[in-house]
Amino acid sequence: MTNVDRNISCDKPREHCGVVGIAGHPEAATLAYLSLYSLQHRGQEGAGIVVNNEGILDGYRDIGLVADVFSEDVLNSLPGSMAIGHVRYSTHGTSVLKNVQPVWVDYARGSVALSHNGNLVNGSRLRAGLSAEGSIFQSTTDSEVIVHLIAKSHAPDFVGQVIDALNHLRGAYSMVIMNSDVMVAVRDPFGFRPLALGRIGDAHVVASESCAFDVIDAEFIREIEPGELIVIDKDGDIQSLFPLRQTRCAHCIFEYVYFARPDSFIFGENVANVRHRMGQELAREAPVEADLVMPVPDSANVAALGCAHESGIKYDMGLIRNHYVGRTFIEPEQNIRDFGARLKYNPVRGVLDGQRAVVVEDSIVRGTTMRKIIKMLRRAGVSEIHMRISSPPIRYPCFYGIDMPTREELVASTLSVEMLREFFLVESLHYLSLDGMVRATGLPKERFCLACFDGNYPVMDRECLEDEQTCLIH
Amino acid sequence: MTNVDRNISCDKPREHCGVVGIAGHPEAATLAYLSLYSLQHRGQEGAGIVVNNEGILDGYRDIGLVADVFSEDVLNSLPGSMAIGHVRYSTHGTSVLKNVQPVWVDYARGSVALSHNGNLVNGSRLRAGLSAEGSIFQSTTDSEVIVHLIAKSHAPDFVGQVIDALNHLRGAYSMVIMNSDVMVAVRDPFGFRPLALGRIGDAHVVASESCAFDVIDAEFIREIEPGELIVIDKDGDIQSLFPLRQTRCAHCIFEYVYFARPDSFIFGENVANVRHRMGQELAREAPVEADLVMPVPDSANVAALGCAHESGIKYDMGLIRNHYVGRTFIEPEQNIRDFGARLKYNPVRGVLDGQRAVVVEDSIVRGTTMRKIIKMLRRAGVSEIHMRISSPPIRYPCFYGIDMPTREELVASTLSVEMLREFFLVESLHYLSLDGMVRATGLPKERFCLACFDGNYPVMDRECLEDEQTCLIH
Amino acid sequence: MTNVDRNISCDKPREHCGVVGIAGHPEAATLAYLSLYSLQHRGQEGAGIVVNNEGILDGYRDIGLVADVFSEDVLNSLPGSMAIGHVRYSTHGTSVLKNVQPVWVDYARGSVALSHNGNLVNGSRLRAGLSAEGSIFQSTTDSEVIVHLIAKSHAPDFVGQVIDALNHLRGAYSMVIMNSDVMVAVRDPFGFRPLALGRIGDAHVVASESCAFDVIDAEFIREIEPGELIVIDKDGDIQSLFPLRQTRCAHCIFEYVYFARPDSFIFGENVANVRHRMGQELAREAPVEADLVMPVPDSANVAALGCAHESGIKYDMGLIRNHYVGRTFIEPEQNIRDFGARLKYNPVRGVLDGQRAVVVEDSIVRGTTMRKIIKMLRRAGVSEIHMRISSPPIRYPCFYGIDMPTREELVASTLSVEMLREFFLVESLHYLSLDGMVRATGLPKERFCLACFDGNYPVMDRECLEDEQTCLIH
Amino acid sequence: MTNVDRNISCDKPREHCGVVGIAGHPEAATLAYLSLYSLQHRGQEGAGIVVNNEGILDGYRDIGLVADVFSEDVLNSLPGSMAIGHVRYSTHGTSVLKNVQPVWVDYARGSVALSHNGNLVNGSRLRAGLSAEGSIFQSTTDSEVIVHLIAKSHAPDFVGQVIDALNHLRGAYSMVIMNSDVMVAVRDPFGFRPLALGRIGDAHVVASESCAFDVIDAEFIREIEPGELIVIDKDGDIQSLFPLRQTRCAHCIFEYVYFARPDSFIFGENVANVRHRMGQELAREAPVEADLVMPVPDSANVAALGCAHESGIKYDMGLIRNHYVGRTFIEPEQNIRDFGARLKYNPVRGVLDGQRAVVVEDSIVRGTTMRKIIKMLRRAGVSEIHMRISSPPIRYPCFYGIDMPTREELVASTLSVEMLREFFLVESLHYLSLDGMVRATGLPKERFCLACFDGNYPVMDRECLEDEQTCLIH
Repeated sequence: MTNVDRNISCDKPREHCGVVGIAGHPEAATLAYLSLYSLQHRGQEGAGIVVNNEGILDGYRDIGLVADVFSEDVLNSLPGSMAIGHVRYSTHGTSVLKNVQPVWVDYARGSVALSHNGNLVNGSRLRAGLSAEGSIFQSTTDSEVIVHLIAKSHAPDFVGQVIDALNHLRGAYSMVIMNSDVMVAVRDPFGFRPLALGRIGDAHVVASESCAFDVIDAEFIREIEPGELIVIDKDGDIQSLFPLRQTRCAHCIFEYVYFARPDSFIFGENVANVRHRMGQELAREAPVEADLVMPVPDSANVAALGCAHESGIKYDMGLIRNHYVGRTFIEPEQNIRDFGARLKYNPVRGVLDGQRAVVVEDSIVRGTTMRKIIKMLRRAGVSEIHMRISSPPIRYPCFYGIDMPTREELVASTLSVEMLREFFLVESLHYLSLDGMVRATGLPKERFCLACFDGNYPVMDRECLEDEQTCLIH
Repeated sequence: MTNVDRNISCDKPREHCGVVGIAGHPEAATLAYLSLYSLQHRGQEGAGIVVNNEGILDGYRDIGLVADVFSEDVLNSLPGSMAIGHVRYSTHGTSVLKNVQPVWVDYARGSVALSHNGNLVNGSRLRAGLSAEGSIFQSTTDSEVIVHLIAKSHAPDFVGQVIDALNHLRGAYSMVIMNSDVMVAVRDPFGFRPLALGRIGDAHVVASESCAFDVIDAEFIREIEPGELIVIDKDGDIQSLFPLRQTRCAHCIFEYVYFARPDSFIFGENVANVRHRMGQELAREAPVEADLVMPVPDSANVAALGCAHESGIKYDMGLIRNHYVGRTFIEPEQNIRDFGARLKYNPVRGVLDGQRAVVVEDSIVRGTTMRKIIKMLRRAGVSEIHMRISSPPIRYPCFYGIDMPTREELVASTLSVEMLREFFLVESLHYLSLDGMVRATGLPKERFCLACFDGNYPVMDRECLEDEQTCLIH
Repeated sequence: MTNVDRNISCDKPREHCGVVGIAGHPEAATLAYLSLYSLQHRGQEGAGIVVNNEGILDGYRDIGLVADVFSEDVLNSLPGSMAIGHVRYSTHGTSVLKNVQPVWVDYARGSVALSHNGNLVNGSRLRAGLSAEGSIFQSTTDSEVIVHLIAKSHAPDFVGQVIDALNHLRGAYSMVIMNSDVMVAVRDPFGFRPLALGRIGDAHVVASESCAFDVIDAEFIREIEPGELIVIDKDGDIQSLFPLRQTRCAHCIFEYVYFARPDSFIFGENVANVRHRMGQELAREAPVEADLVMPVPDSANVAALGCAHESGIKYDMGLIRNHYVGRTFIEPEQNIRDFGARLKYNPVRGVLDGQRAVVVEDSIVRGTTMRKIIKMLRRAGVSEIHMRISSPPIRYPCFYGIDMPTREELVASTLSVEMLREFFLVESLHYLSLDGMVRATGLPKERFCLACFDGNYPVMDRECLEDEQTCLIH
Repeated sequence: MTNVDRNISCDKPREHCGVVGIAGHPEAATLAYLSLYSLQHRGQEGAGIVVNNEGILDGYRDIGLVADVFSEDVLNSLPGSMAIGHVRYSTHGTSVLKNVQPVWVDYARGSVALSHNGNLVNGSRLRAGLSAEGSIFQSTTDSEVIVHLIAKSHAPDFVGQVIDALNHLRGAYSMVIMNSDVMVAVRDPFGFRPLALGRIGDAHVVASESCAFDVIDAEFIREIEPGELIVIDKDGDIQSLFPLRQTRCAHCIFEYVYFARPDSFIFGENVANVRHRMGQELAREAPVEADLVMPVPDSANVAALGCAHESGIKYDMGLIRNHYVGRTFIEPEQNIRDFGARLKYNPVRGVLDGQRAVVVEDSIVRGTTMRKIIKMLRRAGVSEIHMRISSPPIRYPCFYGIDMPTREELVASTLSVEMLREFFLVESLHYLSLDGMVRATGLPKERFCLACFDGNYPVMDRECLEDEQTCLIH
């Protein structure tokens, strides 16, 4: 028997984090915990909460799902009216705990805790510079780099120290930072990752996605602007600053394609609506005669629906997804065909037998799971498979916080669409065009980062190029 | 903070069990484990596997999901070519472990282990009779009663002992029983609960639903007949017997309505197909002008789809379900509106705002979660709500293994449909008619048990009437 | 690396159980838990408590030390004014949980729970008889046999049923039994195992050893007599019966030699006093010229002290025992000399170098650990080793609850004392004589079971003889 | 019910740490683990190991005993030929994990891990200075300060960086430091804490006490000298340096009195021998007529023995210590007299009744447990109690790594010996004189730090004086 990582059957890019912050509420830790629950899709490997209890920071972090990390005892041990929280993906190894956030340190002016979503393009260079000056690092996260920079600042007050630190950062960051007095929420000037502001009574709440507000019945106020820094004091009162040099906007369009929850409202629009329109564009770009439109559940559900509505072809559910799949599996030694995919998906023969199916997926990375799904659908009797992907081929790595495979592993970086059709052994294959995808968002193209599709990176650093596994000369 | 049980937001009847058996395979325990994974929807409170390793039974049972109960170490400690497994719901309390199956005992002729799905109507009377003769009981399950009866039999061989025991049983049972030599799979003569037979190489597999075969790439052979007893030896060879007095067939129609997984094939038909037709019947019985048809996810997805296809109204997903919801929640002391439902479901305002929605659910028990969902939909801007239930009102208790509330708690047992419409505060409400529901199955009405809808019980026992919380005079 | 069981370095017979019972106290479970703490030396593999909460029994059992099995949450879930508890040794395997006591079942007249210390000589025969009548068994314990017998009784009341059951039992039992009304404490007519009665306020307490009373500040009243049955009701009131045929007294002298805690008072005498006198007898029987007397800690401490006091030779501690040794060890692949013993004991060179040592141990079973200790002492510079064992050679198996190796493994069953001296490579070796040991107790010889030393079994059953690993013809 | 911390019944100063290091052995982590087992008495709250596997550091740390922290899986995940380990006491709170050592960080020149035993007197000032320069701290340990200093050094090689760091440190440190190439073991010039060097085959071992060598069958070579720095490379080869300014020697005499294990060899002498002589001095200084000499087990066992040997009064064991006492207890709400002490100790009435007892303890801090023990002894029938403490009254705080209560809590800092006699309600009380204690060591007085007894601190820092809870003007 061997363990099969859950991600073996994950043929998708992976987001790295979700952040929350609550200020001015007597049960800050409990609200942070509930909010993290609804951001669990943004990171399932570790979770943490740090509270400010009358000026003293205390916290708890561990590996695992939010429900497993936080017991009632743990939450009871974290009183205070201010809290920040974090969910993250992480890499493997015994030492992984050290990377679980929020990072939380003492420095000359007191304590500071920080939750970070995104990736700096100059993180390694900043780290090297700090190391050269004698700094030590206990994790491999950008977040630790940022608290070093805050501690190094000579600014007289905390907000000034944070701004000093921000001036060194290049790349993607949606962050919540807390000291003994205030909470600061800040979003990089490109606005790569989402960050929203809400209210619950007199308290203010900050979260990666608006769905985190709904679970605690908080009111969505607005998104935090690219380059905006919001200071929230212990009573929940807020102040808005724009301390950073403005630049072009570069929202990660992949949040719309795959990451964000459909009920969230980000970049000025409801995610489900955008995904539905992506499916409609797909239907218009590549019409086909078929008996049903079906998604690879659950992330492609809405796009498939849009595709069905636009094409007039019946929407149906040809694959069942098992939601009880745990972190690891024990696999029999005797090989089972398509084992990884089979655990997670099962075709519904009654729906599929003899049918011509339009199969909608939102994106494809390695393509291995997709190939297994195609085979399972064939065995369930599907007569024709028309694959439709609601985003263009992913050809380039992301430097802003999305964990993509190397270029060699990106199936679309080396194969043409026609070759991919052969690879997947399907009757037809169409990827949504870049323009179609952007049109579905309702926003102008220049507001987005489309680098993983077109290689045009809004912000780069020498270290990106040096990164040996990437080759950007295309 | 207080704990909120996951079931607070469960407004559904609850099934009690899923069973599997594997004979003739060198990795029997691992295959049983994978099969139980795909039956997890039938019972999430406890799981167990007993193996036969060259005539010696050994096993492991614990409270929790299959993924939590079985580690690689545990499975490695269970070698053998024959295995039976079980997943169950259970009642609360510290002693709940004692009810986790398979039950597994020693008696005069060796060891026997048993996994049971269903409920006996004469279980308490059999238990009382055995007690009167001096028998002791270490659980509150019918399964323990059955192994007592096997042990009391004077039949010369194991199959004879099992048949002797079966002759005492009245009610619902789909069981897998194993001693040191053989495995026996048996289904009560009414065929209340499903039980299917499959093959993987030379080995045979038995499971509550055919989806358990798919995950291990086993081939579905056929359903085990009502009243049929199948003996499988260690090599996987089988023999079929019909040792019990035949009677009318009485399949539980609720397996089609809610319990079974849509990709399973039971009672001669694919579950998804039946549910889709139930949705179509619903659309025909209660047409309405609306902008979208949406399910309460995930159990009503297919029925909603049928309703949409038949009515020509657009299918859409107005509610997001959070699949990361754990067993318990920590709730803030400060009340959050509709907390229980809000944890599990979130409305998609972008889809719902200003829309007239047909909301499809498969069944309603207490109605409390449904009321919370309705309120959330209203706050998300839905202009009209037309509730459609893809089964008739549940008015009577089930004695065959479904955990229903008492009659007083069954919202439909005391209120008329018009009163229910007021209770839910919706523009219209329709329950699928009994005939419509049956028509959707494609089978004749007399093949089903419809007792929870019409009060006509296929088999009763004095003890059912004595059961104080039920009042059958209607 | 490989796991080393703690018992690899245990060269001693092993007791099987400790029992407690509390009646008439509002915090019965907590007092039972504390009492079990002080009986932990009698069984370290599993622990359990069953309470009677206003007529309803509930309980919790698990594998592990008392401190690990019972959390505050678990104890809080066990309210009630009556409780029985148990600690046990057990055999290995995944199914070991089923043998953890108290056993706790339902039968015709309600619920009954039972904690048992001792071993029946006719346990297998009783089990076979019950099996022949169709009884089933879920554990391999005598305790389950006894509750079967209680359930089979036709006596009109609970005490009568217990007495009916007792009339079938042959062998050793000190038990606490509880139903919804009363607690019964009973000791077999031979009085093999100890059982004491105490009082805490208005409540009564029963325990294997009086040290269990001390930890909860209960008052020791007296020992329960051989053959006595005490009924304690919910208010703690008691009644004494002698329902069994009287026979000779046969206290297990090994309780004095090794099992019982030195601060306990059993068989009418303080254990430490008896052990001290055993050491004195040893000094008188085998005087030697030496520089120090040292024990193999901790069980031989008191005997060594007696030996030193009598001989006038200085007592010293030449071996340090590591009390942090856990259940299992991870051993390096590269062999370490005397690894098992070395983990637990370390010689004190400063004390030993150049000294002639009298090394006192209470008993020896296999002799393997003792050999390793001798080697370690030699390497630490001891010039002469005079081994003194404060009991005679163990030559025969025990049928009354002590887990001894088979005769072949009993080093003294096949080797003469002179041969043993060679085996251990010591300058001299003396085992305390049977008469010396008995004299140290202050009680007449006929009050003891000395079977493991002299083969005279107070009570036997055909099944003992059939037990293949024992050969009693000597 | 309430939790009682194990330390409630600890009336002793508490040591902070034990360290080990292994270089040049293929199973370095497993040997480190076994060594930590034998140093468990130096710290029971947390344990950790960091390995160097071909230049890459990896590690594991957690709260708990060594046996609980390290499973076979964890050790298997830590291959490498070099390892350092640590056991520690720690303060309470949910964030305690962050203080578990070895500390292990990345800096400009690679990775470094450090295990530290002792306490710096200028730790807070160094921390403040580093903070002022912008350094951040993730723990409250001196160890993190030291790795900061290493990282700040501009020395060209690792050993030079360590020496640079050492030049800033004032106070007590016995440390093992490891980077990707070498291991460095270093002891402060005062030699406050012990540190020993051993050999196992070609590998070298470093540990706080020599007992850590015995468990792995390593050979004790010598103690590392005060001020000595030993560099050990991957093959186990060593080099000795004395890079620090020499100063007076100041061994912590409390290591002899209480901390070290009796079988260890430290400061040039076997601990048991020293303790035995302390007991002899005690007997000479305060002779008394009595029936027995008894220790408060286990730490005073050897001193009591010395006292008995010198006085000619019989040594006996009047108190049994329960070694199964876990980390926390659940206490009944209804008060039990002397609960904390009663859990851990039980008097042996048979030994004590009617006796005049000399009760030997090694040291007393608060005196609360001692008072409870005295009461228990009285109730067990002792007729006279003559308390003998094998060290002088503790009157001053320790700044070198011993966790003493504040002066107000030190019972001897405010009460005269006669007043203490009244406080304990004993017939006589004698503390060993300073000269007697020193004489027992066999070393000249000027080689010891006696500050906790006489207030003469070998090295001080302004921050010690500023520490508000201490008042050194006496």
